[in-house]
Amino acid sequence: MSKITATILSICLLLAGGSAMAQQGSMSEPVDRAKILTAPGVFGAFSTYKIRYEYYKLSSAERKGAADEVMAVVDKHKDKVIVDAYLTRGFEAKSDYFLRVHAYDAAAAQAFLLDFRATRFGMNSGVTESLVGITKALNYITKDKSPDLNKDLTGTTYSGDAPRFAFMIPVKKGAEWWNLTDEQRLKEMETHTLPTLAYLGNVKRKLYHSTGLDDTDFITYFETNDLGAFNNLVLSLAKIPENKYNVRWGNPVVMGTIHSIAEVVNTLSVGQ
Amino acid sequence: MSKITATILSICLLLAGGSAMAQQGSMSEPVDRAKILTAPGVFGAFSTYKIRYEYYKLSSAERKGAADEVMAVVDKHKDKVIVDAYLTRGFEAKSDYFLRVHAYDAAAAQAFLLDFRATRFGMNSGVTESLVGITKALNYITKDKSPDLNKDLTGTTYSGDAPRFAFMIPVKKGAEWWNLTDEQRLKEMETHTLPTLAYLGNVKRKLYHSTGLDDTDFITYFETNDLGAFNNLVLSLAKIPENKYNVRWGNPVVMGTIHSIAEVVNTLSVGQ
Amino acid sequence: MSKITATILSICLLLAGGSAMAQQGSMSEPVDRAKILTAPGVFGAFSTYKIRYEYYKLSSAERKGAADEVMAVVDKHKDKVIVDAYLTRGFEAKSDYFLRVHAYDAAAAQAFLLDFRATRFGMNSGVTESLVGITKALNYITKDKSPDLNKDLTGTTYSGDAPRFAFMIPVKKGAEWWNLTDEQRLKEMETHTLPTLAYLGNVKRKLYHSTGLDDTDFITYFETNDLGAFNNLVLSLAKIPENKYNVRWGNPVVMGTIHSIAEVVNTLSVGQ
Amino acid sequence: MSKITATILSICLLLAGGSAMAQQGSMSEPVDRAKILTAPGVFGAFSTYKIRYEYYKLSSAERKGAADEVMAVVDKHKDKVIVDAYLTRGFEAKSDYFLRVHAYDAAAAQAFLLDFRATRFGMNSGVTESLVGITKALNYITKDKSPDLNKDLTGTTYSGDAPRFAFMIPVKKGAEWWNLTDEQRLKEMETHTLPTLAYLGNVKRKLYHSTGLDDTDFITYFETNDLGAFNNLVLSLAKIPENKYNVRWGNPVVMGTIHSIAEVVNTLSVGQ
Amino acid sequence: MSKITATILSICLLLAGGSAMAQQGSMSEPVDRAKILTAPGVFGAFSTYKIRYEYYKLSSAERKGAADEVMAVVDKHKDKVIVDAYLTRGFEAKSDYFLRVHAYDAAAAQAFLLDFRATRFGMNSGVTESLVGITKALNYITKDKSPDLNKDLTGTTYSGDAPRFAFMIPVKKGAEWWNLTDEQRLKEMETHTLPTLAYLGNVKRKLYHSTGLDDTDFITYFETNDLGAFNNLVLSLAKIPENKYNVRWGNPVVMGTIHSIAEVVNTLSVGQ
Repeated sequence: MSKITATILSICLLLAGGSAMAQQGSMSEPVDRAKILTAPGVFGAFSTYKIRYEYYKLSSAERKGAADEVMAVVDKHKDKVIVDAYLTRGFEAKSDYFLRVHAYDAAAAQAFLLDFRATRFGMNSGVTESLVGITKALNYITKDKSPDLNKDLTGTTYSGDAPRFAFMIPVKKGAEWWNLTDEQRLKEMETHTLPTLAYLGNVKRKLYHSTGLDDTDFITYFETNDLGAFNNLVLSLAKIPENKYNVRWGNPVVMGTIHSIAEVVNTLSVGQ
Repeated sequence: MSKITATILSICLLLAGGSAMAQQGSMSEPVDRAKILTAPGVFGAFSTYKIRYEYYKLSSAERKGAADEVMAVVDKHKDKVIVDAYLTRGFEAKSDYFLRVHAYDAAAAQAFLLDFRATRFGMNSGVTESLVGITKALNYITKDKSPDLNKDLTGTTYSGDAPRFAFMIPVKKGAEWWNLTDEQRLKEMETHTLPTLAYLGNVKRKLYHSTGLDDTDFITYFETNDLGAFNNLVLSLAKIPENKYNVRWGNPVVMGTIHSIAEVVNTLSVGQ
Repeated sequence: MSKITATILSICLLLAGGSAMAQQGSMSEPVDRAKILTAPGVFGAFSTYKIRYEYYKLSSAERKGAADEVMAVVDKHKDKVIVDAYLTRGFEAKSDYFLRVHAYDAAAAQAFLLDFRATRFGMNSGVTESLVGITKALNYITKDKSPDLNKDLTGTTYSGDAPRFAFMIPVKKGAEWWNLTDEQRLKEMETHTLPTLAYLGNVKRKLYHSTGLDDTDFITYFETNDLGAFNNLVLSLAKIPENKYNVRWGNPVVMGTIHSIAEVVNTLSVGQ
Repeated sequence: MSKITATILSICLLLAGGSAMAQQGSMSEPVDRAKILTAPGVFGAFSTYKIRYEYYKLSSAERKGAADEVMAVVDKHKDKVIVDAYLTRGFEAKSDYFLRVHAYDAAAAQAFLLDFRATRFGMNSGVTESLVGITKALNYITKDKSPDLNKDLTGTTYSGDAPRFAFMIPVKKGAEWWNLTDEQRLKEMETHTLPTLAYLGNVKRKLYHSTGLDDTDFITYFETNDLGAFNNLVLSLAKIPENKYNVRWGNPVVMGTIHSIAEVVNTLSVGQ
Repeated sequence: MSKITATILSICLLLAGGSAMAQQGSMSEPVDRAKILTAPGVFGAFSTYKIRYEYYKLSSAERKGAADEVMAVVDKHKDKVIVDAYLTRGFEAKSDYFLRVHAYDAAAAQAFLLDFRATRFGMNSGVTESLVGITKALNYITKDKSPDLNKDLTGTTYSGDAPRFAFMIPVKKGAEWWNLTDEQRLKEMETHTLPTLAYLGNVKRKLYHSTGLDDTDFITYFETNDLGAFNNLVLSLAKIPENKYNVRWGNPVVMGTIHSIAEVVNTLSVGQ
């Protein structure tokens, strides 16, 4: 594998450009998970995969080594990217699992995914959906613009059981939405925020901005352990005027269970 | 198969989380079918499958064992999920059969479907559609809100021949529907319910809620032995104002005949 | 083949339910073609197929036997279903042929198609579209509701050359159509019927109702030997207000030449 | 190949029906190209193809013989059909080439395409789009209805370099268009014709009518050597009110270079 | 390879028509990159590709030679076309890379792409999207029509870091847009141009016209090193009235990193 590694390494250096120094082996620091998950300006890549039929024609010995190979790639890139993994088989027709990759530099996220796809497991995974976005500071419900709601929004934290389920839902607004004035959109977003406050305790949420980067304006991401509460949360968002401006909401809605990447690889490597 | 079984078992334990104790072998009680089919808060997973061409390249001996292998998986999960099976070949282009899985915990439904897909039959089945939802208590036509209709609705039961046909039809409402007031929606649902009363005797019906969980708001499920009556029932629902709020009704409509899962596997395992 | 036959037979018995007695071999009567093609309450299944590339990898000897095998299946089910076959290769991208199956019982149609798919030819055919419907008595232009048009409609019969071409065109109406009153729809259908009278002599027509059974409201089926006349007939239907209520008209329009099923199988079995 | 030829011949006879006499070998006259390209009532079949990956696994010797085999089929049908060929690889994602087939009888066009698909090259071609139509006499801008425009339209002929590029663009009108009166549509077509006069010298054009025959109302076909002029011609048609009635214009737009069929086969047979 | 080369050469001569003289070997001049990228009347072909699974079944030795083979084709056509390459794997589901080809003659671009597809790498690449257009002189914001904006537009040049990211975004306008008067469209384009001025320094832009040539009116192409700025640029274009006239904007948005073609081939040739 050393020749492949060398080739990949040179690609990474090439892609990573000016920050290539940071690539140098185990001396570098792993990405700070808590920080990258809250910082603005972070690149997020969501990709769904379906295992190829051919994978199960490999010997079970070959499949057994798959997780180690993937973990080595994750480890190699741990100073540049963090990776979350989700099992969708049983819930989705178009995928068996999905990955969420965060990086301060989009090219670093790509470098990881190139290496991942070059593993035996990645090579036997067909990509079925890919959405990218970036994080930004709060746009509307800020301390300045909407102080009361901001206080409510930031004052409650998740208090449910460890979430076992995650949802990835793209949202695209039509031209009518974007042609509203800033004030009008603020007003709609206040109406949007109000009914969601009740669910801060049992549904976690994260937002990515994708206009121009992909065929969606937003990627909304949720974690929960309470599917009924989540259903009610989304219903509350269906019932407000903002919904009339949505030209895409879902399509796909991707539901998965939250796992370590090793669990995902191992689970999907079983089969006769 | 013992290593695979062990691996799968550990996955199940992992997925099932806190309720892992219930997983322990034949001592546990099978799910009460009548109860789970009427309870609110139940997770329902519908998935349609198409047999891969490669399946028929297996020797007929290998295919003959397929049903037993599937039944062992059904049996293993019988204390967590119930499974219904339907043959769609001949009626549908995109599937040969579909499964309906009920579980109190979505992760348990996924655990079953992961094991099912790891069997020889499951591995040779391509998933072509997957819809998930949860059951809820009646929303509109309740004793309180609409007493007369509630009485009619709950007062008549199915009295036809054992239904041989089932239909799975997703329904999605537009933003205009969800932005109606509760009173307006109640009124529309009363108008919806009235013409359907005539068919309570020959068409069974069950409803799943999917907003946020999938790209539909509802999954409607029907069983009947009278296709003409069923056609008239759906026509009666086409002719009311509520229909104007539907942005998805079908797409797909999935029609199948009702069978035991062993019958489905055996029937689709025949071929030269 | 005897084991397969036995398995299939048992499935048929199972599917056919109460009418299993009729299944018993050559003593039973073949379906009366003229009668089933005019009776209401008949189930019609249209399915389009594309030959798999792999079929032409079989030896030509194997392919030569394909038609006999298919004809045996047709013969086996001849007391329950009638089958019409059409060659679409050259006209359609998504199919090479299509079948039209009529049966008094939908499960009998399915039983035939299951057996057909288990033949070598059926196994090498991918289903690309499948639409089902039922026949009904005339709805609008009846003796009572519209006596003059009814007289015209039933007074002229096809008088052209034996039709060589057939068309299958699904039609779906929007909610606005179904929310018209019966009187309004009758008026629209009278406007619909008038311009079509001129084509009764050279275009045959048959209608199937599919609301609830499939993702269409109607399947319209035509036979003609005069493509110019057929084009003008459909243009005349494009030019009336009813057309504004169509949300699906075609998609696909399927055009084929009319053949015996043996001709279809033999023609598509040629190849190097 | 003689057995295959015999089989195909019998199919042709069967399909060609009453005109089977004309099929008899080399004594019959080839179709008059100039005449069939200007006559009304002619059947036109457009089909786009993508070469299968498997084709390039054949030995180069086998691929070398492909053109001769195709030319033999063209020759065999030359008294019934004419065939034009276009190379789309490099311009289109969904096809590598397309064929345009003209015949006085649709069944003769199908007979040719069946034989073409049975050649090694045809068998390794996947059909990706197929549109059929018939030619008609001018409908609107006739000597009677619009004498001045008719004079302009018929008074200028193509005077550019031999066209190297061809375009196939389907057009479908909505119900609003067809529900205009004849006079209104004539007026729109006059507005349509005026800006196109300037391009008669460098863009050739031909029209096929498809209502009822396929999922389009028209197939528009163009030849040019001046892509800038062609772009401007289509822009001029975008800028008139008629455009508001189009529900399909393109989808696909198919662009190809004009070649002999032998050139197309030979070019696409190259590969390692 | 000499026979293949000869065949391809003859095709090129054939396609290139009158300018065949220029094809003669290394004596001819390479295309002037700066000039062709700014000239009007230039043909641009964008095509996205996905590597076939089969490619990774080739020995790594065979894959190692892939880049040289591709570079030889690029070199052969260097007097007729220029080629840019982009890596999309990790960002896109439907492609692994895309190419942008410029030529003064569309047939020369096709000739290159035919040769490219005949290489081992090209043959193992499935084309997933293909869009073509031509460049034109500025249409609206000219010195004459909009002198102030023209001055601003042409007065600022890109001053950021070397761009690492490229975007290809098709745009199609509805009939309402094209039916505006020239003055109205000029006004909208002025409103369009104003908010984009702020991004001239960090986002490069190029426009291709496709009406009639493909299923889009424009192909917009961007290069940047600042994804946040690019997101804001596109948001600013979402917020103006012109957006209401867009019937296609993206679908797909294609995001890639900018590389030499050899880097793209080498990177995607890695895998076990």
